[in-house]
Amino acid sequence: MTQLNFCLGIHCHQPVGNFDSVFSDAVNKAYLPFLETLDEFPSIKISLHYSGVLLQWIEQHRPEFLSLIERMIKRGQIELMTGGFYEPLLPIIPDCDKVGQIKKLTCYLTERFGCHPTGLWLAERVWEPHLPASLRDAGVTYTVVDDTHFKIAGVGEPDIFGYFLTDELGKGIAIFPISTTLRYTIPFQVPEVTIDYFRSIATEAGDRLIVMADDGEKFGIWPETNRHCYTDGWLRRFFETLEANRDWLRLLTFSEALQQCQPRGQVYLPTASYFEMMEWAMPAHTILHYEDFVNKLKECDLYDRYKMFVRGGFWRNFFVKYPESNNIHKKMLRVSARVQHAAESAPDHPAVHDAQDNLWQGQCNCAYWHGVFGGLYLTHLRSALYNRLIRAETALDTVLHKNRNWIDVTTCDLDCDGQEELLVETPLENLYFKPAQGATLFEHDFKPAAINLIDTLRRREEAYHQRIRDPAPALPPNPESTKSIHDLLRPKEADLEKLLHYDWYPRVSLIDHFLNPATTLDAFSACQYAEDGDCVNQPYQARVEKGRNRCVLEFSRDGHLYHGQAIVPFRIVKTLTIRPTRSGFDADYTIQNNAPLPMRTLFGIEFNVNLLAGNAPDRFYFVTGQSLAHPALNSRGTSARATDFGLVDEWLKIKVHFVISSAATLWRFPIETASQSEGGFERIYQSSVLLPHWSLDLAPEQKWSVSMSYRIETLEQ
Amino acid sequence: MTQLNFCLGIHCHQPVGNFDSVFSDAVNKAYLPFLETLDEFPSIKISLHYSGVLLQWIEQHRPEFLSLIERMIKRGQIELMTGGFYEPLLPIIPDCDKVGQIKKLTCYLTERFGCHPTGLWLAERVWEPHLPASLRDAGVTYTVVDDTHFKIAGVGEPDIFGYFLTDELGKGIAIFPISTTLRYTIPFQVPEVTIDYFRSIATEAGDRLIVMADDGEKFGIWPETNRHCYTDGWLRRFFETLEANRDWLRLLTFSEALQQCQPRGQVYLPTASYFEMMEWAMPAHTILHYEDFVNKLKECDLYDRYKMFVRGGFWRNFFVKYPESNNIHKKMLRVSARVQHAAESAPDHPAVHDAQDNLWQGQCNCAYWHGVFGGLYLTHLRSALYNRLIRAETALDTVLHKNRNWIDVTTCDLDCDGQEELLVETPLENLYFKPAQGATLFEHDFKPAAINLIDTLRRREEAYHQRIRDPAPALPPNPESTKSIHDLLRPKEADLEKLLHYDWYPRVSLIDHFLNPATTLDAFSACQYAEDGDCVNQPYQARVEKGRNRCVLEFSRDGHLYHGQAIVPFRIVKTLTIRPTRSGFDADYTIQNNAPLPMRTLFGIEFNVNLLAGNAPDRFYFVTGQSLAHPALNSRGTSARATDFGLVDEWLKIKVHFVISSAATLWRFPIETASQSEGGFERIYQSSVLLPHWSLDLAPEQKWSVSMSYRIETLEQ
Repeated sequence: MTQLNFCLGIHCHQPVGNFDSVFSDAVNKAYLPFLETLDEFPSIKISLHYSGVLLQWIEQHRPEFLSLIERMIKRGQIELMTGGFYEPLLPIIPDCDKVGQIKKLTCYLTERFGCHPTGLWLAERVWEPHLPASLRDAGVTYTVVDDTHFKIAGVGEPDIFGYFLTDELGKGIAIFPISTTLRYTIPFQVPEVTIDYFRSIATEAGDRLIVMADDGEKFGIWPETNRHCYTDGWLRRFFETLEANRDWLRLLTFSEALQQCQPRGQVYLPTASYFEMMEWAMPAHTILHYEDFVNKLKECDLYDRYKMFVRGGFWRNFFVKYPESNNIHKKMLRVSARVQHAAESAPDHPAVHDAQDNLWQGQCNCAYWHGVFGGLYLTHLRSALYNRLIRAETALDTVLHKNRNWIDVTTCDLDCDGQEELLVETPLENLYFKPAQGATLFEHDFKPAAINLIDTLRRREEAYHQRIRDPAPALPPNPESTKSIHDLLRPKEADLEKLLHYDWYPRVSLIDHFLNPATTLDAFSACQYAEDGDCVNQPYQARVEKGRNRCVLEFSRDGHLYHGQAIVPFRIVKTLTIRPTRSGFDADYTIQNNAPLPMRTLFGIEFNVNLLAGNAPDRFYFVTGQSLAHPALNSRGTSARATDFGLVDEWLKIKVHFVISSAATLWRFPIETASQSEGGFERIYQSSVLLPHWSLDLAPEQKWSVSMSYRIETLEQ
Repeated sequence: MTQLNFCLGIHCHQPVGNFDSVFSDAVNKAYLPFLETLDEFPSIKISLHYSGVLLQWIEQHRPEFLSLIERMIKRGQIELMTGGFYEPLLPIIPDCDKVGQIKKLTCYLTERFGCHPTGLWLAERVWEPHLPASLRDAGVTYTVVDDTHFKIAGVGEPDIFGYFLTDELGKGIAIFPISTTLRYTIPFQVPEVTIDYFRSIATEAGDRLIVMADDGEKFGIWPETNRHCYTDGWLRRFFETLEANRDWLRLLTFSEALQQCQPRGQVYLPTASYFEMMEWAMPAHTILHYEDFVNKLKECDLYDRYKMFVRGGFWRNFFVKYPESNNIHKKMLRVSARVQHAAESAPDHPAVHDAQDNLWQGQCNCAYWHGVFGGLYLTHLRSALYNRLIRAETALDTVLHKNRNWIDVTTCDLDCDGQEELLVETPLENLYFKPAQGATLFEHDFKPAAINLIDTLRRREEAYHQRIRDPAPALPPNPESTKSIHDLLRPKEADLEKLLHYDWYPRVSLIDHFLNPATTLDAFSACQYAEDGDCVNQPYQARVEKGRNRCVLEFSRDGHLYHGQAIVPFRIVKTLTIRPTRSGFDADYTIQNNAPLPMRTLFGIEFNVNLLAGNAPDRFYFVTGQSLAHPALNSRGTSARATDFGLVDEWLKIKVHFVISSAATLWRFPIETASQSEGGFERIYQSSVLLPHWSLDLAPEQKWSVSMSYRIETLEQ
């Protein structure tokens, strides 16, 4: 009689910063019903991973869930796995944080459940070959990745049916390959399909092992899966089928498999993740090219035989694809270095522990990338990362700064793009400038509210946008995914294609625009207009004058206006005064026409402000002295002769307040993206753009000036 | 007018342990004529890398070469690049050795030439994404890899025409992509082909950059290239053509390019090397499957358009493909850890410095892998690595061991295969045993001669063996390599296909064979025979008894003899006594028939001894008391009734001496491999096999015993 070993693993996680309602929904619709169903089948063993984020939420809101887990552990049905506490991508965080986050979850599980987990759930299975050293340092003896990782290393069937050993310079761990086949049959096909597959690979020797491990959300949260798994009873039938085949199908936890089965051999895995992730990590046009290739291979009947040699990109290039992610990442690294520094000088200071925990929360992977889930596109997840990182910095301030009235100015290449940034930091805020790209303000962290006010994801082409534009053509048939998430994507609302405008520059603040006088609000907001100047993303000279109680930044550029054939040289100087006791800055602008011709242009200064909700009663625009009925932050409009205006957030209790010395025309409009999520294509409010602008007509040598104050004010409680 | 920037880099290296004649030949036929030709074209700038191994040899044997380099540096024509001093693969050595080896070469170049190199030649362009951190720690600001690395990261043309920035967790360097096209046109096509290609990519903006960087051996050492480059004048014509196009083609060193050109952007490169290397790193049958795929893609006209998604394996899997390489690697890591330990306890001890330098020599990459070069197959290169690592250990002995009469026994998983090895170490030698695989002796380092006597590469199938078996069919046409090395492979001697036998077990020592009584020497040496027993690679129980002046290892196994349908259980016990003052061991064997049947078998104990030269007058076999005329070590034969025999190496002045208590039939034969090298397919002597064996016919319960002494004796000077 043929036999087979089967390891079943389930991983459950919700991002730091996700809404309570989503946690609650996930527990009610997926995590709890899964476990309750499993509870009826005590012979079915399983390895489970819950991220620390999720466990903390469950402990606070649904403690009975933990008691159920505990009971099932006690009877030997469940093995718990560890991981980075806040589910970071391990390769992209410093080694001390890798080890620290893993030990934190291991300690939590040991204290709460009395178990001693040594298996690690590798977030998103993002593997790099030097990981085993940190894993071993953190007490890990095994982890689980995809069979894709193995196949691209040259391990084919039947060798793949087992587990392997790997090491980084002699520090070794075991690794299990997750079956891609099973990721698509469970729970999307009738249980018999899985059992038939099991039968097809079972052997007389019975020494083969197959692994299914995937997200717990597939069992109740992904579209249609709650009805499918529970109402229609798929999960119960699946467990019944497993039980019915117990005579030849042995269910083992991963730890049991390590004890009872021999490793298949050694292997070294290249940088990899599951194959979908490697596709998403590529540039949009490369994804389309890749999809062409895969389709052609399928047409030529070559794909199945040779797909081990076909693969997409490398995870870390999400930082290149989305500089906004790179910005969070490099900021996180800066905070991590400062936490380490503080931990060395004051290891027992409670503020250092607080900073470390906030740093670790700020490493949660979900908003660092974007694939079939919203991820980076979701402003509430991105802002949660900034929130935790800013909180960590604020905690460190109390340790690292003796007096309360300080201002630090740092010049460094924060984002590793080869150009230096200018970082101004005070007890109240961080103001980060890019002299090399328009002397723009690309990050403004207001510490009392722990928010980066500028945090905006620019509108860019995504490979799937062609499906929004042209939803009609059927997708090429994918035999592996008859009902899976990847084929279910449909727009959540009509007319999403109207959002498909792409920004040619980063949506940050203090952007100096010289628009063609004919530019309209509609054209500008669609980013389809004529920029006559060359200041938006070009280098400025920077001069810093730092006193004890203020710092003055002078940014200047000899720019050009392109009027048809004529080229008008001009000089722009923007001087910012920043004080440690007041938020924001005072800005003095001077523009001088250096041409022997007149200089005619619309000069505007763009600000992007993201207060997280585009259409909420407690968040709105104001323009003092004008009869505006508090328009919503996702509204579009023009205010003539504005001098005092801004945005109010009654929830955060802050007001972003602009006062200008010379009345401007104010355009406002929202940046909204169209992105995919597991529920379909959706509109996401990214920020509110404010463009105060002036019509200039300067004679040769004529100068024009304006002053502006930009403040974040705290509303009365 | 269109313009283009062009960086030309040349890398020259010879392996640690290579023959003087090869160094000399390479200097005379390639390195020197290249430089002398270049010297005539002072306007042609170039970046050059010479490994520390090569520079030391040149300094000793051809100092005038260094003066020429110095003169060309002084006039600004040459930029020197650093690298690991002994050309290690950086990802596979510990971080402290990475930094140490790079700093050693940087210091050497600074002291000798007064230059300050910050560019690194990355050995074999084996890249892993965490490298930048160590590189930055070692003072490196840029390195050079293949465009393949970039293309598989999703960077296509035209972005590829420039350099990029990357970082590991914020520690950044610049990276240049080497053009694969140029690697095949230079020097294999007429210079105009290269110039035409340059013209095709030059632009009005003139901001593109293209890089050619490759091995200096391509200019004079690779087959036919000396005639081609110098006699036929290709290189002079190439330089003349470059000079003639100076108005639009700007030659820059890498450092000049960094100063004068903007980076193209950021990028994160996955694990990669040049595409040929990624193919070689795969198992033999997977290489064939991969070649099928590439050929099919070419037939379907898909390859050129989509090859960025097609790739082979991962370098580190050479350790899986060749456990012999893994053995050297893991031994090296063990030595490195001990050097570090010693350096902490006695940082200024000269023996520690000596050990460290030998360790670093033992990290030279060439014999850790095998592609189109002999590499790992070349016994003199492999033995050079063991030699340096053993010398490092011997140096450490003087620091770590106070008394001279010690014996250490360590149980650990040295090779990371999940099974424990037993390491016995004394002032004279290292004896490493694998209880889990036949209780075999897999490494025997004799310290006075600094040699691992067992170091044998087993005969295994290689993908290219089919071309030895069937040389007739023309290779599929490769448009990229009309005259390149990859198509020139032809057997160096006739009948190489007769060597294509494959070993089913590792060629080590103390292997317990139970052969079918009908087995012949020919069948056994071809590894096509019936092994009736199950001891060769199966687990033994191990018991260690360690005294002050000796250690006794008892290995035992309850084995089985498979006689047609009958199964004969038996017990084998081998007891080894090892003393710190004497090399080798005394072995006592007992075999007991535990079946109710007679046990009839040929019992033999296999030893593999590699004295490096199969056919040399100073290396030969002896069988005392028999009229053998000192047969060569690659001879094959049988000696009846042998009791005292062995191998003599008059060059190393050692004798490997066996004395057995009960006369045996002695088979001897060589292990010879057929492998590819840049000069063609070649026979390589790997070791001499000695198989003393006895015909056993044991009644039920009957025991049989034999004793053996195995010693390494030093010959009189």
